[in-house]
Amino acid sequence: MNAARNGSMHELSLEQQASLSSGASTWTSQPAGDIESMHMSDGPHGLRYQGSEGDSLGLGSSTPATCFPTASGMASTWDRNMIFAVGKALGEEARMLNVSMLLGPGLNIRRSALGGRNFEYASEDPFLSGSYGSAFVKGVQSQGVSAVPKHFAVNNQETDRFRISAQVDERSLREIYLTAFEMTVKQARPWALMCSYNKVNGVYASENRELLTDILREEWGFDGVVVSDWGAVVNRVAALNAGLDIEMPPSNTDDQIVHAVESGDCSRETLDTLVSRVATLAERSKPSRSGDMQSLESCAQEHDAIAREAAQESVVMLKNDGILPLDPSGEGVIGVIGELARTPRYQGGGSSHVTPILLHNLLDELGKAMPQRRLDFAPAYSLQAGDHSTRDDLIAEAVSVAERSSAVIVNVGYAQSDESEGSDKHDIELGDDQQAVLRAVQGTGTPIILVIYGGGVIRLGQWAQSSSAIVEAWLPGQAGGAALADILTGKVSPSGKLTESIPLRLEDTPSYLHFPGSNGVVCYGEGLYVGYRYYDTANVDVAYPFGFGLSYTTFEYSNLKVEPRGACEADVHFTVSNTGRRKGAAVPQIYVRNGMPDRPKHELKGFDRIDLEAGESHDVTIHLDQRAFSVWDTRDHRWRAYEGNYTVELATSSRTIVDESTITIAGDGSVPPLEDMSTIEEWMASPYGAAVLSPLVNRIHDSVPDPSPEMTAMFNQMPLIKLASWNIGLDTAAVERMVAKANALRSAQQG
Amino acid sequence: MNAARNGSMHELSLEQQASLSSGASTWTSQPAGDIESMHMSDGPHGLRYQGSEGDSLGLGSSTPATCFPTASGMASTWDRNMIFAVGKALGEEARMLNVSMLLGPGLNIRRSALGGRNFEYASEDPFLSGSYGSAFVKGVQSQGVSAVPKHFAVNNQETDRFRISAQVDERSLREIYLTAFEMTVKQARPWALMCSYNKVNGVYASENRELLTDILREEWGFDGVVVSDWGAVVNRVAALNAGLDIEMPPSNTDDQIVHAVESGDCSRETLDTLVSRVATLAERSKPSRSGDMQSLESCAQEHDAIAREAAQESVVMLKNDGILPLDPSGEGVIGVIGELARTPRYQGGGSSHVTPILLHNLLDELGKAMPQRRLDFAPAYSLQAGDHSTRDDLIAEAVSVAERSSAVIVNVGYAQSDESEGSDKHDIELGDDQQAVLRAVQGTGTPIILVIYGGGVIRLGQWAQSSSAIVEAWLPGQAGGAALADILTGKVSPSGKLTESIPLRLEDTPSYLHFPGSNGVVCYGEGLYVGYRYYDTANVDVAYPFGFGLSYTTFEYSNLKVEPRGACEADVHFTVSNTGRRKGAAVPQIYVRNGMPDRPKHELKGFDRIDLEAGESHDVTIHLDQRAFSVWDTRDHRWRAYEGNYTVELATSSRTIVDESTITIAGDGSVPPLEDMSTIEEWMASPYGAAVLSPLVNRIHDSVPDPSPEMTAMFNQMPLIKLASWNIGLDTAAVERMVAKANALRSAQQG
Repeated sequence: MNAARNGSMHELSLEQQASLSSGASTWTSQPAGDIESMHMSDGPHGLRYQGSEGDSLGLGSSTPATCFPTASGMASTWDRNMIFAVGKALGEEARMLNVSMLLGPGLNIRRSALGGRNFEYASEDPFLSGSYGSAFVKGVQSQGVSAVPKHFAVNNQETDRFRISAQVDERSLREIYLTAFEMTVKQARPWALMCSYNKVNGVYASENRELLTDILREEWGFDGVVVSDWGAVVNRVAALNAGLDIEMPPSNTDDQIVHAVESGDCSRETLDTLVSRVATLAERSKPSRSGDMQSLESCAQEHDAIAREAAQESVVMLKNDGILPLDPSGEGVIGVIGELARTPRYQGGGSSHVTPILLHNLLDELGKAMPQRRLDFAPAYSLQAGDHSTRDDLIAEAVSVAERSSAVIVNVGYAQSDESEGSDKHDIELGDDQQAVLRAVQGTGTPIILVIYGGGVIRLGQWAQSSSAIVEAWLPGQAGGAALADILTGKVSPSGKLTESIPLRLEDTPSYLHFPGSNGVVCYGEGLYVGYRYYDTANVDVAYPFGFGLSYTTFEYSNLKVEPRGACEADVHFTVSNTGRRKGAAVPQIYVRNGMPDRPKHELKGFDRIDLEAGESHDVTIHLDQRAFSVWDTRDHRWRAYEGNYTVELATSSRTIVDESTITIAGDGSVPPLEDMSTIEEWMASPYGAAVLSPLVNRIHDSVPDPSPEMTAMFNQMPLIKLASWNIGLDTAAVERMVAKANALRSAQQG
Repeated sequence: MNAARNGSMHELSLEQQASLSSGASTWTSQPAGDIESMHMSDGPHGLRYQGSEGDSLGLGSSTPATCFPTASGMASTWDRNMIFAVGKALGEEARMLNVSMLLGPGLNIRRSALGGRNFEYASEDPFLSGSYGSAFVKGVQSQGVSAVPKHFAVNNQETDRFRISAQVDERSLREIYLTAFEMTVKQARPWALMCSYNKVNGVYASENRELLTDILREEWGFDGVVVSDWGAVVNRVAALNAGLDIEMPPSNTDDQIVHAVESGDCSRETLDTLVSRVATLAERSKPSRSGDMQSLESCAQEHDAIAREAAQESVVMLKNDGILPLDPSGEGVIGVIGELARTPRYQGGGSSHVTPILLHNLLDELGKAMPQRRLDFAPAYSLQAGDHSTRDDLIAEAVSVAERSSAVIVNVGYAQSDESEGSDKHDIELGDDQQAVLRAVQGTGTPIILVIYGGGVIRLGQWAQSSSAIVEAWLPGQAGGAALADILTGKVSPSGKLTESIPLRLEDTPSYLHFPGSNGVVCYGEGLYVGYRYYDTANVDVAYPFGFGLSYTTFEYSNLKVEPRGACEADVHFTVSNTGRRKGAAVPQIYVRNGMPDRPKHELKGFDRIDLEAGESHDVTIHLDQRAFSVWDTRDHRWRAYEGNYTVELATSSRTIVDESTITIAGDGSVPPLEDMSTIEEWMASPYGAAVLSPLVNRIHDSVPDPSPEMTAMFNQMPLIKLASWNIGLDTAAVERMVAKANALRSAQQG
């Protein structure tokens, strides 16, 4: 129905139609005829509502709103329901502010640990990122507000982001960098989507017809509006023709669109389609403009509780020698060290920066959670400096606290300026000031509970060994302090799992030599081997593997059974039991190993999150669809599920496979045809080829008694057509006849 | 003069002209008019003369000729004079057989340790490969015989070699994969060159106009004949139009060329040019057809001596705890273990396989070198098996020999079938049978001198620790046994250096995940980071670094002085002294570190080989030309020597820098112009840009007091044109005026 709308139906002049192709202001779309203006707002973990105008960079102050954990924390929950709930809460806040388009979620792959915007992205894994994106979009759009997944596509760095060309091969593009968008578009049907600044293989994303039209709309069925990232349009007409709908913010060049239509550089149909899309979006998002603006105060407590629960689930406990949870009624002083316990770092910088309604810090929340225990605090370092300079006075105070404590909670992490839109990191180390604090505190011998804040991974090095417990808090949003107190005191058992492998050294990361490129080009040389796909395939040790995270309770898995369903799908059945003495959540992960050469060792294709009381068991089924057994085939540019054996791994991290089962998949039935350039080996491996070629091959073998292994290998690798230049009575025409005959046999068989 | 020749000058019919575009037989070119037929012969380390016909694969028996060390050994000499001498000897033998075109040298980069044909290639480093190629070609062509460097280009694997498309980025293509060909073409002016089977970025090398015409002829000035690898032509007309001259072997399809000329699919000029090139080659190589065929017996002894000397210099001693050299008059039995001591492996399989005139084995030669010492031999394993199956009886015999010996020389290495044209290796391990021998012998406690044979690197693993000495013999040619005896008994001090890094694990090699590709495509994802460029930049430990090799004497380096010459060149002066008590040869290596991001840490740009008597010193000057300070710039597709500081390292391996000096290079003066998409940072970094943009930037800074570091970073990375959508009174036209003004200032300054 909506698809039938067009400019003339809306009785719009050419100028009015063209006006819809860019915003009315920094944060609003253009109204025209009966098509209403829509308000847009950052961001992915909280509303950054700036009214209609905002500042030029769009980075100034905003209306207070709930600040949820950033994507790297949210995704660490591996909890689709929780992500939906947060999306829904964001949608509610958007609607209360009459915001029709919420600019998120961020679905780019965390290609490098140095990525400055990793905190806004879910994972190094596309399936996990796509699961996050789908749940998020469903949540937001349940409120009549459009989600706007971003940044489409291959926008994995901040360095030179306005110009850089991501050079990525077709297979990696499809299997790694587009998959999360594809899953989200197909599963959650977002009403809008944001293109990225960068070029993909030389063509700006904003002008990339292959991405914006061929793949996004025609292949995936996206029927929404594509908006540009703020300032991503270089050529208005090229962008419109490629499939971009709305330029944001407006550059006051809509006359270029008018001229292009008049001159024929852009067809009237193209502009009509744009009008129709914008009208459809305005229609779909009507609920978001249904009432008067409301203060977010009314939902503040409820959303703060959601933010707290999300933060609880996002915390990943990397190590625990038994020191955790802390006993609220125990003896001895607990030292709380590090300014971050008092002045939390709970979000990153840039367009996603939220002014929070409430803010909990760990120090106060620990006091509330353990009123009977004495807490001694020392800031230990200053967050003001920005230069990571060491403050001896503060360190001395921290040592003094540690000396009189039975345990210390040392809070460290990236500085605000380390993680922001607009720039990448230079290393993944803790600052010198914080390292100095850790050395000094370690010298006291008091057991250390390390709490780490940061949107991306931090190399722990020696501190992994010397700490009694390590808790990764990510950027946990406004309620992070409360959530951490819940975890540290055992009110809640940690259940978050890593969504990015933590390497032993930056040099071990697969994009190390190719990030962030130079001269306007970044080569995605590691190909498919991003994250655990690299470490696990190349046998490179990591500090903590993808999918890893500890709990206060223990889980056991049993009764694994994998049932093929149809030709290309399967159901994975198993039982998970909480064998410990506390309530907790297990995150069983399903990896598929297809054994093909030139492929990652295994890949995440399913997961679930199961809450279990102590002693409770639960039967779980995880469905693996055809995509779980498919690879992108560059020969005919499509997904293919090949016949063969696949090993399905039940795992608690990419390196901890608790059970596995090998099944045979019939495959999608496609067999590549034989060609004149197919090798002798390929001909003889095909029943159709062998039927045709055997007589000739036998004759050649008879004529060369006792060939050396090398000679045999060379012969087998030779394309059939090459035999036409041998003196064996085979010419080009004869080869072509053999090709026709073999493929006729194949057609008859498959027919 | 030659360039003026053409078909009509030779009074050839169209059919005659077309006939020149393919061979007359497997090993001969077509004669036509006054253009003589030329005989061609493999190969790169010895003549494989098969008369005119040969067998279909061209792999059958051949006339006996001198077998020199294969390329991996030859290049390990780092001795341009020695390589020239071998090339000259090969040219002499070719001329004695009336062979006009000697198919070699192999100049492909050893990209992966698994490359089946690595034994025919010089190095992982392009400068070393190009130095080898130049010396070799000069030697061969000094005899009036055409060398035929091969396989042009990016032919770095055997797997699927007839079809595989090497996907390689422009920078890596130029800096890694083409450089050796470029150096050889420019320095030694080969009269012919062989294209490879594979595709380069999707286009068959045989049909690749960019490679065969644009780069090879127009950029590098190659004026010779391009012949196809045997069977590499897929489309005759496309090949001719791309710049291929002679298809080998002939496919009897010259009529396609005739039709193409008649139909206009190929121009008459193109065919004329081909005729002219073939005629020129026939003219140049006349000396090779000047006499009657001669038996090679007459030069057998002289060339055997050259082969022996080359082998001596190629041996790389990797370890020596003092057990070497052996004392010919010492006490105790020397055990010689391993069939390879009696039945040497001295060359690889495939088209380069030579029938040697003479053949020395180590066992006999050791006996001659140490007549007074008792040598006990045990074969320990069988070379017949081919399956690496362990022979307990042979091992028991070897243990018995080891038990009664004061030292054992254990000979191990790749099997013949492991290293051949036509297939790649699957691992770099010693066979199970030889590992069993080593374990058993090690159990006796007798010190082990490990001698390793193989065209490519072998992982030593535990044997590196447990051996007292390790000698890498490569595939040392017919005189290898004699040369090894010379080394082991101290008649000659080892002087060879590694031309390929030896990794700790196969997984550490940079192409591990990308070799050999699949579905007809291999991605050169590691880019520039081949060999030591990878290990040294990513700080990956190796077993033995590139350039490494021990001697029986010691060398010291002093007086390093690096003098810039002109704007982009330098001379490196230093003194090398033999501080030990034996004669020996030093191989000083010059690496340049340019400090640019997104580049290898350092690269080999010069080397020399200096023979020194004990106590002798020598002043050395190594010239670094402009290329030593140049990188391939993908922005304007040319070599650029940038102004800046360059550190020149004097080294004895890529990991042993003995001294260094930093110089300033003025550069080639090219400064990239500013564009509307140049960032604020780039504008302000340029004196011309800053002059134009400063007022505006100052105004913006004034309007945003105390910007956050993130905001400043975002601003600086923004392309200037993006400011046109801000409300600061700057529109697109104003930006274009600023661009024009800045570039006018730049033009005025650069004059």
